[in-house]
Formats: sequence, C-alpha cells, structure tokens
Amino acid sequence: MSALEELITKAKALQAEGHTPGQISDELGLSMETVTWLLTQQKGMEAPKDVHIDWAAVGSHGVLLNDMAMMMLKRFLYLEEGGDVRAIEDLPDTVVGIAPSGAPLATLIAAEEGLKLAVYLPAKHSRSEAPTGSLSGTFSAIAAQRCIIVDDVVTTGTTLSETIAFLRQHGATPVAVWSLFDKRGAREIDGVPVHSLFVISRLG
Amino acid sequence: MSALEELITKAKALQAEGHTPGQISDELGLSMETVTWLLTQQKGMEAPKDVHIDWAAVGSHGVLLNDMAMMMLKRFLYLEEGGDVRAIEDLPDTVVGIAPSGAPLATLIAAEEGLKLAVYLPAKHSRSEAPTGSLSGTFSAIAAQRCIIVDDVVTTGTTLSETIAFLRQHGATPVAVWSLFDKRGAREIDGVPVHSLFVISRLG
Repeated sequence: MSALEELITKAKALQAEGHTPGQISDELGLSMETVTWLLTQQKGMEAPKDVHIDWAAVGSHGVLLNDMAMMMLKRFLYLEEGGDVRAIEDLPDTVVGIAPSGAPLATLIAAEEGLKLAVYLPAKHSRSEAPTGSLSGTFSAIAAQRCIIVDDVVTTGTTLSETIAFLRQHGATPVAVWSLFDKRGAREIDGVPVHSLFVISRLG
Repeated sequence: MSALEELITKAKALQAEGHTPGQISDELGLSMETVTWLLTQQKGMEAPKDVHIDWAAVGSHGVLLNDMAMMMLKRFLYLEEGGDVRAIEDLPDTVVGIAPSGAPLATLIAAEEGLKLAVYLPAKHSRSEAPTGSLSGTFSAIAAQRCIIVDDVVTTGTTLSETIAFLRQHGATPVAVWSLFDKRGAREIDGVPVHSLFVISRLG
C-alpha cells in the first residue's frame, strides 16, 4: 500500500468513527485541504501536494516524548536567533499547548521549568454550528500572561493564527511559537516568531 | 525565494566550491537525482519529487545533537518492534557512522554505551575513476563485529545498501540501521531492519 493509500484508509476509518475533518487533520498532521481530498477524492480534483510526518515512534513513549519537549526548550535557551544565549529568566509565564498534539509537549515543558500550563482547543474541534476556539477551564487562564504556544506540526499556519488572535483578544501576549516540524518554512506568523526543530519542504 | 530556488542556489554554490554531486546530495539531504536536477535544470526534465529535511537547528548545537543521538538509542532500547523491551546486553559491538552526517550521531551513541566506533565513507565521496566505499583507518575495524549502521536521512536507500554489502563482504554482521528520518517508509533494507525516529512521506 502506498503512503497515500494508507492515509486514505486511515482518514476514512477516522471519519467512520465520527471524527470531524478538523480532528482527522490533526490526527494525521495534514492540512484540511488534504484531508478533504483524502475523504472525497473527487474526480478532476488533483491529489494533495502535502507531506505526511509520522512521529509516532517518538510520541508513543514518555521518555522519548520528554526528550523531544526538552529539545524544544533547549532550542529556545541555546539557539535564539540573532541574540545572545537566553537566560531562564527570559522564559514566559505560561506555556499554551494546542490540543490535542501540542498539549503533552507543552505539559512537559511547563513541568520542567515551573511555568503555568494552558490548553487551547482550536475551532476546528468545535462541533457547534459557528465553530469557535476556546481555552480549557481545567488549566491556567491567560489574561496578562506572556505566552509561548506549542504545537507539533506547522502545516498551513491557520490554527496558529487563530490561537495568536485568541490570546491577544484575551489580554495575553504571545511571544513565540515552538513547533517540532515546520512545513511552511516561515520565520513568523502574525508577528510572532516561529522556532522549529525541523523544517520539511516539499520540492516540485 | 522558494524552497526550491534556495536549494538551487545552495547546490550551485557547493559545486562552485568543488563539491561532487554525491557530497552535495549528503550536504542537502537529497537524492542524487534531485541534485542532478538542481545543478542542470535541463529543459523537459521534470522538477524533482523530493522532500528537503533541514535539521540544522538541532545539528548545530552539541547538546541538541546529543539529545537526538540518545533518542535513537532509546528508540532501540524501549521500542523494539514485536519484542520485549531491549536490554543493554542486546547492543551490538560496533556503531558504524556513515560519513559525513551519520558520524557525529554514531560517535555520541558509541561514547554513551561504551561501544566501538567505525566510520564508513560511501563510494559517492570517492574521487577515483572507479569510485568505491571505504572504512576510515583511524577508527575501529569491523571484521566479526555485530554492527549498527547510523545515518541521518534514508533517502533512496542506495548508500545503506552499499554499506550493508561492504560490511558483509568484510566479515561483519549488520544487525540494524538507525536513522533520524526515513523518506522511504521501509521497514528493512537488504534484510536489515530500519529503525527511524520520523517517517516523512511525500503525497501526490
């Protein structure tokens, strides 16, 4: 089975279980456009030009997941672009994990550095007629907080733009986005710098 | 500048400095076919269908590079497919790093676990008329050794096939390939299991 056929099978199985396209997009680390194509494969509609990133070997074990989260933290502390080595005091107040895939990474970073943890649920996971994003009430509030936003994969940047706007509307200051993989190769989104461990670019 | 234009510029700069296509292929983590296209862009020749992986943010700092190497080791120890958790005693005798990009990762793994270190120089780096691979005489020999082969990116698998054949011809037993990224999604190469941290698949 090709990578594409495998993804079509997975996407359809998730849909059959009642998942929304937004959830499938997160689950598979693909853009919404790609997921729509996988689910419908309408004639005359071109196959998606996307790249699938499977990091389950790391995500499936707590020790490896923690290593990954600590690398995001060290990238911030050691490799700040165009500046000196960072000090722990430069860390923000709150780590905002984007649910579902960013939340475990954000949790481990907050636990390591003694920071507050917030969890953002993007609009694409909302099942209401007018989908809207929200902050989980179980974790920290964000008003007047300097926040770092954590997610696993930057695909189109739509979810991050939404999260940045949400934080600003609620009185928080997003100071950086940390991601494992960046498929856009963008240095910033809506004025917020993006720091990724790996940049993945599709050629041709 | 698009990712493709950036790579064309980089590939041509490396060629101007006297690098062979094989070296450029390693340097940029791309297949030989892609590098040939980047350097010539012959009319009627299609743009390469490849994925570029930039892990320089991690590779450029010793601490992050060491974290990455330790994750390769832990993946082997904790996540052995279809078996129990591995014991340190299951480790091989020698870690063979493929020069240039696999060698630092192999070095850190060998140093951590007290294993021998060998460095393989693939044929594509040979400048002789009949290019042939070789083992660096500065590091360990491999005869009668159980070896793990370490590289950063599995692109087409050509270099790994060559390394596996070289090890077998010289009396060694390759027991596994460890890589950071696998662009082929292959579980094995020439009968040797491949364990990668991340699988990157191009769609469409």
